Amino acid sequence: MSRPPFEYPTVDMTAEEVEQERVVYGGLAESVRRLNEASLRTTVDETAVKEAQALVEQATAALSEAMIPGNFGVSLTTSGKVRGHGNAVVGLRNPIAVPLVITQDREEGRATAEFELNALYEGPPGMVHGGVSALVLDQICGEAAAAGGHPGMTGTLTLRYRKPTPLGRCSAVGWLDHFDGVKATVKAELRRADGEVTVTAEGLFILPRWAREELEKERPPQYE
Amino acid sequence: MSRPPFEYPTVDMTAEEVEQERVVYGGLAESVRRLNEASLRTTVDETAVKEAQALVEQATAALSEAMIPGNFGVSLTTSGKVRGHGNAVVGLRNPIAVPLVITQDREEGRATAEFELNALYEGPPGMVHGGVSALVLDQICGEAAAAGGHPGMTGTLTLRYRKPTPLGRCSAVGWLDHFDGVKATVKAELRRADGEVTVTAEGLFILPRWAREELEKERPPQYE
Repeated sequence: MSRPPFEYPTVDMTAEEVEQERVVYGGLAESVRRLNEASLRTTVDETAVKEAQALVEQATAALSEAMIPGNFGVSLTTSGKVRGHGNAVVGLRNPIAVPLVITQDREEGRATAEFELNALYEGPPGMVHGGVSALVLDQICGEAAAAGGHPGMTGTLTLRYRKPTPLGRCSAVGWLDHFDGVKATVKAELRRADGEVTVTAEGLFILPRWAREELEKERPPQYE
Repeated sequence: MSRPPFEYPTVDMTAEEVEQERVVYGGLAESVRRLNEASLRTTVDETAVKEAQALVEQATAALSEAMIPGNFGVSLTTSGKVRGHGNAVVGLRNPIAVPLVITQDREEGRATAEFELNALYEGPPGMVHGGVSALVLDQICGEAAAAGGHPGMTGTLTLRYRKPTPLGRCSAVGWLDHFDGVKATVKAELRRADGEVTVTAEGLFILPRWAREELEKERPPQYE
């Protein structure tokens, strides 16, 4: 794992507990994702909506019996996995996340994903929201920077919308273009189902100064 | 209402039906938004998760009894309101939308919104995902272009991340900077709760060629 740009807390979880979290809480999120789409597309009448809404509220009350305060955050498991389950794009436990399953290729400094953008991600009629393309490409760029050994936070991101992206199957690829000692320049592309590139992105990723200072204390950096 | 960049279909809805849609289906989306957050933050045990998940699946099945095919799309009501309830950022019926309530000032060519970004919108620990900032600013820029009388689709969008944006209260403002006859240049800012500008954006918004040709047939443009 390449060095994360933050000092994440470590949580003491066995491999079994990590897997249970994936199945139980990840499974819940998956069910809630299907509910999100049905809520948007339903045409059942007011009475049926009210009945469904009562079930939703009953589920919310039950889940709210015990909750972490505030946000989910990012932690490391004792086995060294990044547990970013709250992330708005890739979060296993975040029902508004697609979620993207991003493959990092550390040899090549590349990050890739294939995914489906359904009705929940609409902007212009039948098309992916321009901001959703940006959301996906920001995450892909960040992971490409990390895959290339230079994790950081987004400094700038420039998006060019070349063709419309219809809702449906999409793919994205990002790659580390170069690193100047401080900033990683990353490029990325979003493709629609027919393989055409629809949106291109270029991002600069930077480590916050305090994180750079931490890293300098312990040179050489311990990238795996 | 300024001219939309697409030929939206008109749906025959009375003012009462529009209001009923807002209350009934908008109310359902609001309940599902609360469920989204509870699903992410819950720490109840596996048995309780399974029970809640069963309720969620029951609600999904009931709502799926009758659904529009595919995506929600964008339509106009007979009273001339844009019915973009599926939109990923502002959609009344879209449970993954914040949703932003954007005020367009047509005199000034400005669009503004105040909103809360909760744990569902997290990227770095405790902070708004950089891509979520892009998502919000893309929508604000598009609405500022429309407010300024030059609606269009995103051509390019450049984001500069100046300071971290903690989760919580935020605001955004976008304004039409200039229009060169084809492209509207729009600028925008995201601010965090303490009023500091955290992300700035500059976007070019363009009408698709076919939409420009339609508009030219019926000059002068009928902006209200």
